[in-house]
Amino acid sequence: MRSNLCFSGLGAGENPPVAAVRVTGGLWGERLRVNREITLPAEYEQYQKTGHLDAWKLTWKPGDPKRPHIFWDSDVAKWLEAAGYSLALHPDPELEKRCDEVIGWMAAAQQPDGYLNTYYIVVEPDKRWSNLRDCHELYCAGHLMEAAVAYFEGTGKRLFLDVMCKYADYIAKVFGRGENQLRGYPGHEEIEIALVKLARAAGEKRYLDLAKYFIDERGQQPHYYDIEKARENRPDSWMERPGPNNLPPYNSMQAHAPVREQQNADGHAVRACYLYAGMASVAKATGDQSLVDACHTLWDSVTTKRMYITGGVGSSRFGERFTFDYDLPNEEAYAETCAAIALVFFANRMLCLEADAKYADVMERALYNGIISGVSHDGTHFFYDNILASHPLYHTFSHQKSPRRQEWYSCACCPPNIARLLASLGSYLYTIGDKTVWTQLYIDSQAELDLGNGKKTRITQTTKYPWEGDITLTIGLDAPTDFTLALRIPGWCRQATVAVNDQAVALDDLMNNGYAHLSRNWQDGDLVALHLDMPVERVYAHPSVRQNAGKVALQRGPLVYCLEEADNGPNLADLRLPPASELTVIPGPAELDGAPVITGPALRRDLTPWAGKLYATDRPAYVACQMTAIPYFLWANRAPGEMTVWITE
Amino acid sequence: MRSNLCFSGLGAGENPPVAAVRVTGGLWGERLRVNREITLPAEYEQYQKTGHLDAWKLTWKPGDPKRPHIFWDSDVAKWLEAAGYSLALHPDPELEKRCDEVIGWMAAAQQPDGYLNTYYIVVEPDKRWSNLRDCHELYCAGHLMEAAVAYFEGTGKRLFLDVMCKYADYIAKVFGRGENQLRGYPGHEEIEIALVKLARAAGEKRYLDLAKYFIDERGQQPHYYDIEKARENRPDSWMERPGPNNLPPYNSMQAHAPVREQQNADGHAVRACYLYAGMASVAKATGDQSLVDACHTLWDSVTTKRMYITGGVGSSRFGERFTFDYDLPNEEAYAETCAAIALVFFANRMLCLEADAKYADVMERALYNGIISGVSHDGTHFFYDNILASHPLYHTFSHQKSPRRQEWYSCACCPPNIARLLASLGSYLYTIGDKTVWTQLYIDSQAELDLGNGKKTRITQTTKYPWEGDITLTIGLDAPTDFTLALRIPGWCRQATVAVNDQAVALDDLMNNGYAHLSRNWQDGDLVALHLDMPVERVYAHPSVRQNAGKVALQRGPLVYCLEEADNGPNLADLRLPPASELTVIPGPAELDGAPVITGPALRRDLTPWAGKLYATDRPAYVACQMTAIPYFLWANRAPGEMTVWITE
Repeated sequence: MRSNLCFSGLGAGENPPVAAVRVTGGLWGERLRVNREITLPAEYEQYQKTGHLDAWKLTWKPGDPKRPHIFWDSDVAKWLEAAGYSLALHPDPELEKRCDEVIGWMAAAQQPDGYLNTYYIVVEPDKRWSNLRDCHELYCAGHLMEAAVAYFEGTGKRLFLDVMCKYADYIAKVFGRGENQLRGYPGHEEIEIALVKLARAAGEKRYLDLAKYFIDERGQQPHYYDIEKARENRPDSWMERPGPNNLPPYNSMQAHAPVREQQNADGHAVRACYLYAGMASVAKATGDQSLVDACHTLWDSVTTKRMYITGGVGSSRFGERFTFDYDLPNEEAYAETCAAIALVFFANRMLCLEADAKYADVMERALYNGIISGVSHDGTHFFYDNILASHPLYHTFSHQKSPRRQEWYSCACCPPNIARLLASLGSYLYTIGDKTVWTQLYIDSQAELDLGNGKKTRITQTTKYPWEGDITLTIGLDAPTDFTLALRIPGWCRQATVAVNDQAVALDDLMNNGYAHLSRNWQDGDLVALHLDMPVERVYAHPSVRQNAGKVALQRGPLVYCLEEADNGPNLADLRLPPASELTVIPGPAELDGAPVITGPALRRDLTPWAGKLYATDRPAYVACQMTAIPYFLWANRAPGEMTVWITE
Repeated sequence: MRSNLCFSGLGAGENPPVAAVRVTGGLWGERLRVNREITLPAEYEQYQKTGHLDAWKLTWKPGDPKRPHIFWDSDVAKWLEAAGYSLALHPDPELEKRCDEVIGWMAAAQQPDGYLNTYYIVVEPDKRWSNLRDCHELYCAGHLMEAAVAYFEGTGKRLFLDVMCKYADYIAKVFGRGENQLRGYPGHEEIEIALVKLARAAGEKRYLDLAKYFIDERGQQPHYYDIEKARENRPDSWMERPGPNNLPPYNSMQAHAPVREQQNADGHAVRACYLYAGMASVAKATGDQSLVDACHTLWDSVTTKRMYITGGVGSSRFGERFTFDYDLPNEEAYAETCAAIALVFFANRMLCLEADAKYADVMERALYNGIISGVSHDGTHFFYDNILASHPLYHTFSHQKSPRRQEWYSCACCPPNIARLLASLGSYLYTIGDKTVWTQLYIDSQAELDLGNGKKTRITQTTKYPWEGDITLTIGLDAPTDFTLALRIPGWCRQATVAVNDQAVALDDLMNNGYAHLSRNWQDGDLVALHLDMPVERVYAHPSVRQNAGKVALQRGPLVYCLEEADNGPNLADLRLPPASELTVIPGPAELDGAPVITGPALRRDLTPWAGKLYATDRPAYVACQMTAIPYFLWANRAPGEMTVWITE
């Protein structure tokens, strides 16, 4: 089904289609089952309640309740995208019927010229394209395009794809550098990613050109948002003035400078990482080295100076934004679920550009920590912001939404974003290049990969990862084949061993950019046994992260751990983990499905000196206690209480 | 001039009048000079600019600029109060002329029935007493009464006092439990303090009765604010709903329960401490033990669970309020200058109720740290919020106003509040009871005290406190007199010695509630030499203060110290002060007037493991460095940079 339109072919590889990789068990098998069976139907019901679905019937009139909102289209689109991925692997006539119904409304709603946006068609019909800066019109279009591609690939049905190609063609007429075109670009990026996908699915390079235009035009002078504001006679806003810390105007939407001149990850974190992912997509497709360079600069800014240990990004809830280097508050963290998802998109596209395991390390960090923390164990409740420390009394005295996952949000961008990521997770396991398969994630799974040689290459991963460090990869082939299996050795792993058909392989000579390259004539049934040592690691944040001074975090494999009050009692900040404490991994409590937990001896201060006092001058004395840490993503699934990732050492 | 109306006479003592104690030198001599010569004129100029003064002419009309605001009267009142205190000790015809002019406008503005409020007279003339909950009408009245008493005591002129007595008489007619009275009380407390002062100055017990009424009626059911809201047909507000952490409605203004039932310091911190000070005033004057008990409960809540080491209170900027026990964030601290001042009022009144040095310890803590931090060294710039840690890039990404003192604020309650406290500081040095003088503060000064025996008792303090721990008290008498000199031994002091006329005194038997009681027949010229050991102390916050886990603060004498970037470079959180580091006191830099600073060996982490990385697993290695700590109140007088009170140990 997928077009072979190759564009420049720059870069290392491509992800396999969603349909090619089936997650079969383990942690992710269960999470994907919950996503499919619980979360997707629950989200559909929410959209029924809120009016998101009815909006597509275009029957809303002034005075009616449930007025369509400027971002509603994107919510439904993400759900449809998730459904499309799900249908690729798990046929479900009921789900497909629901989708076809909505898509039918969409097709009927499309205007003769191709335009499609429920808010502007029914609420402000005269205002189309009047406020690109704030009103999410191109953002919604982008999400609809991604959904259309997913649905086309998942079901083979073209209607949605055709609708969105027509919309994209119309958008390409409206925007550009021609005389009668608007020289605009989205205030909330996303369409850049979508247009590259659409170009590939439809085999139409013009959509790629449009994506490139949006990226290249961004932040140019004279500034489109100034022009738009003047044209629309809009009042002054804070956006035209220098932002926090004198960042230039429009930095909150990464439009303060042309993208190739941007040195730091600035502004709204979801927008930023969507943009960067779009830049990497366009760079790969066009071979534009200046755009690759810009991606490197922004990648380094995000991941070496502005990223939580959980893979969360965007530390401030004021503007949902990046702030400044090494500013990573824990209790006040924002770290929106959507932003960590956007970072995975960026990381995955960098992996397609360059086979460097550092990108997969970040992708894995976000997936196992700051993203799956965003959905409850039972799949029905969601975190919008993913804090790294919690005091149950704190949040009502602050701007924090809640220290518990919520059933829904008035701005419910995160729940369907998790759903679409999980439903497409299989495609992130591998990248495939010229006679090379890179394994990027280790997950119990069956893959049937197209290495471009006209034959199917099957790889079955059998593993209890992330709970254990052994992964067996079974190669299935119709005939012996030469290719390279490039096994990612995760950055967290200090000691790995590989055996092929029980023969140990000396890794040192095979390592390159974090991958062990096994090149051979593979036979059907070949067994690759990868062992990753997975001791508990103590992790220390850069000394410039002022919030983590004197503190340590615990990580085992890709999982960041945390302390919860349920296991450790209150006053978690006072629990001190001495450097010499020996840490042990044991099965955890049943209500966390026995997930391995970390225990060890710790100390708490003797409270005697503070009897009736807030401040004391006695040198603190300590009493011994036991510490138990659980995987961070499982927090807030038991009784409410304190939580902390960073522990006083 | 002061009335001898004694009321119940409950409690230990009384403060001497402002005129009786002259601060002569040292730290406070200089601060009081700056207050008098720089701050008071600067504030007058601000009020000229803003329209605060012209408001009293009642010439404002709708459409005019500089519309009077509901709290403007209180600002001018605090300035007049400060001027009154200043004139008591430092005659200044120019200042007095300015005051008399304003007071003349006030007298002319007073309505025939006694009412006096610039906002309601000119802006909303029909709305008098329509919104006690929000509109600061009784709060403004209270400040005007305090000013009138100060001006009467400072100058002997009665006009202002008479105006305010007339206003108080009118208020007493409007409010009360009678049939045609409003059963209301102020949303912003303050008038309770003022009415007790007015009662004493005017010798009229009925003002005390009104203060008692306001306190007793507060928080009773049916709730006056519900009644008022219904009567005025006001829309619903968050105040009628349970507040943060399900605190009952109206907790933000301490009206959620009758005051004797309140168990915790809740809500807006300035209001709370003004209320508590008013309660202590009324308790002392009426002998109401149930009110004394309530004061104890609230004192303990504030000072053993909700107070910064600087004496700052009200940790959250959302609602300028108390939050919950042990919640004392540093970088996000609010700790409004006015709230620390209000705590001094509360502490001082508790000292008058009970001679217990713990109250003076808190008073001294606030004065030397969280209050004088509120004004710049040169007396022209002010902090509204007094944070305990600062990163110069942080504030623009948060709700923090600024990490630098500002010249003025649109809600400029703090600057004149500091001014009135400093101008009356002398009266806080002593409390005087039956043949007893308690020394509460050690400050270079000359006092002429009335011990009720018809003779003047002069006490001259000669000291370099707080820089050094030696205080000489010289007794001046016209004839030998029996009385007890009760010397406060500060809570921070572990070792004190006292000698009278060079004869050492054994302190152990003389100590009671933190005072060394020297009872004798004093002779003119007797010399009391008090020595307070003043080593650097390491202070540890209660282990439940999660923000200070693993951290230590430095204190010497009453002064809390902090690290500034100017002395220590950036990344202050990474500076680690090992428990064994020997700390030395040396003269500080010239731009801080050579104030003693604390130095010692410290450590910083070797950055090697984090090269190009945000997270590392190497056990941290340290490199030696030198630490320099300056008195907290002097921070932000040099180049902008980081600051922290709590240091990683």
